Amino acid sequence: MMTDGTHRPAVAAVIGGGVIGGGWVARLIQNGVDVRVFDPDPEAPRKIAAIMENADHALARLTMAPPPARGRLEFASSIAGAVASAERSDRAERSDRAELIVEAVPERLEIKQSVYAEIELAAADDAIISSSTSGIMPSDLQAKMKRPDRLMVGHPFNPVYLLPLVEMVGGTQTSDETIRRAGDIYRVIGMHPLHLRKEIEAFVADRFLEAVWREALWLVKDGIATTAEIDDAIRYGFGLRWAQMGLFETYRVAGGEAGMAHFIAQFGPCLKWPWTKLMDVPELTDELVEKISSQSDAQSGSHSIRELERIRDNNLVAIMQALKANDWGAGKTLANWEAALYDAVPAETRSDTTKPLETLRRRVPAEWTDYNGHMNEARYLDCFSHATDMFMRMCGVDAAYVAAGGSYFTVETHIRHLDEVKAGAELHVTTQILAGAGKKLHLFHRLYEGEGRLLATGEHMLLHVDMNSRASSLPGEAVAAKLAGFVDAHAGLPTPDGAGRAIGVK
Amino acid sequence: MMTDGTHRPAVAAVIGGGVIGGGWVARLIQNGVDVRVFDPDPEAPRKIAAIMENADHALARLTMAPPPARGRLEFASSIAGAVASAERSDRAERSDRAELIVEAVPERLEIKQSVYAEIELAAADDAIISSSTSGIMPSDLQAKMKRPDRLMVGHPFNPVYLLPLVEMVGGTQTSDETIRRAGDIYRVIGMHPLHLRKEIEAFVADRFLEAVWREALWLVKDGIATTAEIDDAIRYGFGLRWAQMGLFETYRVAGGEAGMAHFIAQFGPCLKWPWTKLMDVPELTDELVEKISSQSDAQSGSHSIRELERIRDNNLVAIMQALKANDWGAGKTLANWEAALYDAVPAETRSDTTKPLETLRRRVPAEWTDYNGHMNEARYLDCFSHATDMFMRMCGVDAAYVAAGGSYFTVETHIRHLDEVKAGAELHVTTQILAGAGKKLHLFHRLYEGEGRLLATGEHMLLHVDMNSRASSLPGEAVAAKLAGFVDAHAGLPTPDGAGRAIGVK
Repeated sequence: MMTDGTHRPAVAAVIGGGVIGGGWVARLIQNGVDVRVFDPDPEAPRKIAAIMENADHALARLTMAPPPARGRLEFASSIAGAVASAERSDRAERSDRAELIVEAVPERLEIKQSVYAEIELAAADDAIISSSTSGIMPSDLQAKMKRPDRLMVGHPFNPVYLLPLVEMVGGTQTSDETIRRAGDIYRVIGMHPLHLRKEIEAFVADRFLEAVWREALWLVKDGIATTAEIDDAIRYGFGLRWAQMGLFETYRVAGGEAGMAHFIAQFGPCLKWPWTKLMDVPELTDELVEKISSQSDAQSGSHSIRELERIRDNNLVAIMQALKANDWGAGKTLANWEAALYDAVPAETRSDTTKPLETLRRRVPAEWTDYNGHMNEARYLDCFSHATDMFMRMCGVDAAYVAAGGSYFTVETHIRHLDEVKAGAELHVTTQILAGAGKKLHLFHRLYEGEGRLLATGEHMLLHVDMNSRASSLPGEAVAAKLAGFVDAHAGLPTPDGAGRAIGVK
Repeated sequence: MMTDGTHRPAVAAVIGGGVIGGGWVARLIQNGVDVRVFDPDPEAPRKIAAIMENADHALARLTMAPPPARGRLEFASSIAGAVASAERSDRAERSDRAELIVEAVPERLEIKQSVYAEIELAAADDAIISSSTSGIMPSDLQAKMKRPDRLMVGHPFNPVYLLPLVEMVGGTQTSDETIRRAGDIYRVIGMHPLHLRKEIEAFVADRFLEAVWREALWLVKDGIATTAEIDDAIRYGFGLRWAQMGLFETYRVAGGEAGMAHFIAQFGPCLKWPWTKLMDVPELTDELVEKISSQSDAQSGSHSIRELERIRDNNLVAIMQALKANDWGAGKTLANWEAALYDAVPAETRSDTTKPLETLRRRVPAEWTDYNGHMNEARYLDCFSHATDMFMRMCGVDAAYVAAGGSYFTVETHIRHLDEVKAGAELHVTTQILAGAGKKLHLFHRLYEGEGRLLATGEHMLLHVDMNSRASSLPGEAVAAKLAGFVDAHAGLPTPDGAGRAIGVK
């Protein structure tokens, strides 16, 4: 069941395959959308492949939810081909035309306008044309279009495949319907669309980035701080705050019970001091550029850009997962997206139920490893716990069932840690149902690396529980029936090696 | 063993017990420093108690490392009493005088200067006087002092008990020794001191905050975005980036292999547009204050300030833990602090070794709970894994031992989940050694809530391993001897209920 107010387009076109265009490609494909890319740069396929690799690495760490079937990637030889499958030219099937057309070409108005002219010759009438511009007003972008109502700005943030924010800005001629439909699409691909009420140059987020940039140039130029020191002043302090609350909510908390007006009254004068002093902006001379770039080399030069990308992505993933556990901000966006992924998969149909069921597939994140250089022992149970949860969903023990007062609690666990495994390895878990009548459920999980190397087995006894009394109880009829089906299907499987064993007993 | 270049003062004084002063108090006390506070506000003890409660809640989630014995909190009736224990006045013992004196009084130069005059009458000659000012130049602060060399700015960020950044700024008369000693103290209490090369008003971080504040006022005033929308533009996008990399490293990555100079060349002109446009700053009229505060009510009014503080702190803790797993930024600061805490505790001396050893004590963080409203099953093994690690340290299996090529790997785990437990509960684990001769180590953990309610037992078989061959091997002599001591001490304990049991077998 798809969450209300979301829509997954079948086909999208991306015009321009740089860092931003490539990031869009990765996010769309990972979310089951076929993408046709046009970029005149012969290096574009190589560059997009590198972005896809980063994005796949990040996705494997980001979620244990089952992703939709991956979208296909095609490179078109023209804009028309990208938006309407030029290979079949004007005979292109209606369903083959891109429903979402993302423009991510250089930031020059005349280039963008000429791209829109080409798009309009071939695109479906109701295609949404979404510019990734970080600053040009949509009213200017759409000025020469035949159907300007369907052009809007959808401004994402690098890395597009991870950061949820997309600023949606309409021009004077953009229709409400275009904004509404685009918002639905962004949500289904895991983003947080923010619709701005009025268009201004640089929109909202980039105004802040530019304000900080101006200050930073000034600080470097005057030798107050190096690039590394400036970065530390951000990431050890207010940067941590801003990953979860913005400027106003942070100050509201700092102001205490007296409220926001009190805060402004108290801190207003203090904040006012430099207002009249910091208005000068240094000129971007060759000397200043050289100063910044040599400081940046000293700061980060020991890592390649590729390494920095991985570090950044691993950190962003970990931060979003941390916020997910607190059901807040970008973590809430992630949780909503995962819930939709779980709901969209009729999981019990994915497997041959006469074999142990596949209940988990994921990579080992680096943060799961410990001082022994391998996956920490507790993560074995983490995998088995997620596998049990997936099996629960297959049996109809979902959020609604739990809310209605039923669930299963694990009462006993036996893990044989048979082999170690390193970060990055591809894991999967299979689940065999040993017994499931009455209140009891007896599961046997096997954890594998790749397709064959057995890493661990997990034997688990669970009891069905009445969530109100917290006492054991019989499951509901529908759940009992589904469970009985799995028990029957697995009745012919051999008893697993290691089941029923105790520690210290061979 | 204390990490090099850190020093824990025995006594600190905090002058001013508001949000910032109270945050200093909490961080110092949690790190084993006795603190004497002076604040003329009769409400100060109540306010500081509320901050301490938040800080203790956060600390319980932040780390499993054993904290130092908590510092004592005293309220002094004068500045002299705070810095030199006035109760004994001029007879105050040398060792009783505050080594660090934190000033956190209102942001007015004349108030601060008069506070320093009072401090100088009673303070030890070598006490460091650290102003928490967020903007006044230290040269101005120290202008009227007798011993100006020991005054510096140590500018922290709210919440002080969680955020690691402290900007250290010396004035023209501040000695290098003062800066060096203050840096050592900040490091030992878990902070990241950032020494600024030159003093300017508002230092570095607050220049950025004020630049963003100017833009935000403008955006709200002109109706471009509400406070909630502005906050979302931060926390769903670049705020996530800035929790881990700052401005320059982020742009370096975005610029790709071509480097920073290329990035500036490419984006410079685009970033330049608004430079000449955004210099106007709106006046802070009553109307604008009212607009901001009513928008803020609409945005956050459904949570009390107390709730928002908890949400913020839980998020910050989770973000820092996430970064710790990646050994990066604020997470690295946390990891270094934890390592020093572990190293500082002669753990084997803390227990009567003839009883099961206490190997873990902590609260259940909210993010450890799952859809069943209790601690997730995998967290039981997480607790037992940390308890095993603590026992390893007691046996001499520490970072140096592992680096030299020896460790223990868990090969088998049996958990009986006997009872559920909720977020916030105080847990502890005791560890009984069942066997430890040769390559094998057989442990039995018990997990309790409070002092008595048994939640789970964990039985674990470990094998000593040669980290190079990854094959089993005998432990080193020192480790074997320590282990034998524990085995002997526990030989008389009864075999635990549940040991040697298999699932499904009674």
